[in-house]
Amino acid sequence: MGAPQAFGELKTRLGQVTDLRRVLRLLSWDLQVILPPAGAATRAEQQATIDRTAHELFTSPETGRLLEELRTYEDSLDPDSDDASLIRVSREDYEKAVLVPVELRSEMVRAATEGYQAWREAKPANDFDSFRPYLEHHMELRQRYVDCFPPGDEPYDVLLDDYERGMKAAEVRAVFDRLKEELIPLASEASEAYGADEGLLSRSFPKDAQVALCAEVLRLFGHRENAWRIDPTLHPFASGGGIDDIRITTRYEPVGLESLFATMHEYGHGLYEHQVAPELERTPLGSGVSLGLHESQSRMWENLVGRSRGFWRFFYPRLQAHFPEQLGDFDEETWYRTVNRVQPSLIRIAADEVTYNMHVILRFELEQDLLAGNVPLTELPTEWNQRMHDYLGVEVPDDARGVLQDMHWSMGTIGYFPTYSLGNVMSVQIWEKVKDEISDLDDQIERGEFVQLREWLGENIHRHGRKFRPQDTLERAVGSTIDPEPYLKYLREKHGAAALA
Amino acid sequence: MGAPQAFGELKTRLGQVTDLRRVLRLLSWDLQVILPPAGAATRAEQQATIDRTAHELFTSPETGRLLEELRTYEDSLDPDSDDASLIRVSREDYEKAVLVPVELRSEMVRAATEGYQAWREAKPANDFDSFRPYLEHHMELRQRYVDCFPPGDEPYDVLLDDYERGMKAAEVRAVFDRLKEELIPLASEASEAYGADEGLLSRSFPKDAQVALCAEVLRLFGHRENAWRIDPTLHPFASGGGIDDIRITTRYEPVGLESLFATMHEYGHGLYEHQVAPELERTPLGSGVSLGLHESQSRMWENLVGRSRGFWRFFYPRLQAHFPEQLGDFDEETWYRTVNRVQPSLIRIAADEVTYNMHVILRFELEQDLLAGNVPLTELPTEWNQRMHDYLGVEVPDDARGVLQDMHWSMGTIGYFPTYSLGNVMSVQIWEKVKDEISDLDDQIERGEFVQLREWLGENIHRHGRKFRPQDTLERAVGSTIDPEPYLKYLREKHGAAALA
Repeated sequence: MGAPQAFGELKTRLGQVTDLRRVLRLLSWDLQVILPPAGAATRAEQQATIDRTAHELFTSPETGRLLEELRTYEDSLDPDSDDASLIRVSREDYEKAVLVPVELRSEMVRAATEGYQAWREAKPANDFDSFRPYLEHHMELRQRYVDCFPPGDEPYDVLLDDYERGMKAAEVRAVFDRLKEELIPLASEASEAYGADEGLLSRSFPKDAQVALCAEVLRLFGHRENAWRIDPTLHPFASGGGIDDIRITTRYEPVGLESLFATMHEYGHGLYEHQVAPELERTPLGSGVSLGLHESQSRMWENLVGRSRGFWRFFYPRLQAHFPEQLGDFDEETWYRTVNRVQPSLIRIAADEVTYNMHVILRFELEQDLLAGNVPLTELPTEWNQRMHDYLGVEVPDDARGVLQDMHWSMGTIGYFPTYSLGNVMSVQIWEKVKDEISDLDDQIERGEFVQLREWLGENIHRHGRKFRPQDTLERAVGSTIDPEPYLKYLREKHGAAALA
Repeated sequence: MGAPQAFGELKTRLGQVTDLRRVLRLLSWDLQVILPPAGAATRAEQQATIDRTAHELFTSPETGRLLEELRTYEDSLDPDSDDASLIRVSREDYEKAVLVPVELRSEMVRAATEGYQAWREAKPANDFDSFRPYLEHHMELRQRYVDCFPPGDEPYDVLLDDYERGMKAAEVRAVFDRLKEELIPLASEASEAYGADEGLLSRSFPKDAQVALCAEVLRLFGHRENAWRIDPTLHPFASGGGIDDIRITTRYEPVGLESLFATMHEYGHGLYEHQVAPELERTPLGSGVSLGLHESQSRMWENLVGRSRGFWRFFYPRLQAHFPEQLGDFDEETWYRTVNRVQPSLIRIAADEVTYNMHVILRFELEQDLLAGNVPLTELPTEWNQRMHDYLGVEVPDDARGVLQDMHWSMGTIGYFPTYSLGNVMSVQIWEKVKDEISDLDDQIERGEFVQLREWLGENIHRHGRKFRPQDTLERAVGSTIDPEPYLKYLREKHGAAALA
């Protein structure tokens, strides 16, 4: 078989694998947004069938044979080309996938469902003990999973690699130690400096107006016509079936405006997928490269745009027009301080820009301790509560608002949490670079103009999809790999006592 | 391999095929209800991949080997048992599927998409000539398709068998000739007898109230909790992912109450799928047995319930409460006559109970003529218009309201139309039997009670799914195969001049 023919066959095969995986994402969206609950059992079987079909097709020896045959062809290409990248990244994916026995993979999928169900009951019952055996099983499965791979520097590297390819736990630790050093004092300084809370976000905001507001923000930030949806769910997320089928969700609560900030956050995720190069559609390269880079995009729109002075200078009058009763009596400065207030608290997803990272670092550290056997599972709640005290000065009243608050561990997801703060860190590195290149960015935002920002992100990050590794993608865009200093500088300048005086 | 093991393997394989096909139905629902339009091209690829995967899995030689090996086991079982039926029906499906070359199948799928696109442009432009080449291609493909099978009594039998297994064109012709004989004079008699039209269905009905009304009807007719959805679409249809994931759609127009009758119609389809025996879920037996039987259920709820005096005696005050402005001044009798009025007209989907069948018979006759080459495609519009004149006394002003009105032929679907009237005919055979066994059915309907009707249909028809052939299913339920006389008697008694005097 000649190289062009083998490459054509590989592309056809990967196109089918991608189709199946996209359909799986659509089914997951449907499960959370649409499915009548009674249909869940049959749906689980349908999703398992699609997942198995995609996995078998991708890991079949024929895929390996084609990848092997294409080595010479790959070497003849520009490594930055789409074709070379497709072969290179697919080979990496393939080599990882075939190392995991199908039985272990199935057991992990089943354990995820069972653990999630157990957690759904344990959390409201505040009952860590009933959940502990599931977590124990997850940790055993992770040990077996780690053992499938050649030994890395440390076991955690294997898990992290699934979410942030090529990143090492030691690199994360270096970044996080630096954050911790600065943010523990900054959190306490800022929480004092913000002054009295007017309680604006404890008010009731009518749902219909929230829906209209979120739609307006999506239109304002911008995207291609007839290619996006926004729907309500319990937990906001971004999904979709392709670059022109972007589906974000948000949550409309009667109190507060979580829906607005969730919409801005998910917009960032959606825009990343939306601006992947069309040539990469229906290939394994056609989506965001890592959870960390993805989070850099969602946090950028939520925080660097959505909690900035410039944005609110433009948008606060519009917000007031949606909610004259709730906000009519308050000025822009009060609102700006309200949505930026730093205040150590119990729940990660409700945390402010500064303290959010401490929630993440705590989880990252505990994950490593669990994996190394340094913290027995019976001690996990105590350890959690101790660190909440040490890092945030917060006393945890119960496990529901402590170790049981997130769903991630219930599904055996270990190595995922750090990507949230990696995203925060990278978001500011990217932001600084955008500001270098678009000198009047702040003015544009004050005028409600986002075209150039969108285009810069598309051109410098989004269009590459998964062609390059996460840190390579970052370096191509901003000139360096991950570096916590710009982020720390941004936080100090925004939330330090001097800035708020 | 022992029979139990082979049977287990067959069931696993058929379960996966069923999962894939159900997912395909969900994707089609999503395409029509949810998908942002710009995502259509990528979606088409995803659907093609799922379809091909399901087809390859089902038609692989391994399926044939298992079915062959299971002959002795099948013979040892009660033929009415689920297991024997699964083997028998799957063998029939398999033997049909493997006779069609994959290339022909792909060509038919592609031609369906192309023809549909061409029709979407040709219909508003009233341009039959631009659409004709697509129809010509469809007819050529159907000839090749027919040639894949052992010769039947006539070529049309092969096409009809895909929608109404085991039914022959000659049987349909016998039923339709009898309908024609009676309905041509009845249509003209009834259209005179109904008297003046008060124009109630030309009024505006607010959309929100229509939505509430349709939801109320669904609750009233009844189904299991958390298992149904109703959404708006351009063309109403019923779909879903399983017996507890039933999704019907309706169309809310500003004028008239098409949404209500569409909801009742699609409820009938949905209920059939909803009441298939749970043991048949995830098998090829787990859905309605034929288009005709399906239509018997939708037409039963739309017409025999939804256009009956008893139903409106119960429901008209409720309808008035939704629309006091529109209906406050009109009594139940006026409303009953409005929704039952017989009036020959141009458009099949807007036709009344009596004349609807003439639209179907015309299409059935033309399909046979086309397949036999008796009517050249260039003459099709003329032939259409001539028969509309002969059967309904209606003059067709243009092809958009004539030969181009339906989408079916645009996708190459030949042999589908007759099932609409077969459904009408069977609906009354079933209805008569229900009335024999539930003596106070009319009183129950006047009280808005549908539990016994639902349960009877479930027990006698729905639960069987595809276990038995359509006519066997009918005979088990009512004691005879298809017979037009009860239907004709019903129409005469409801719409004849004497009844309306």
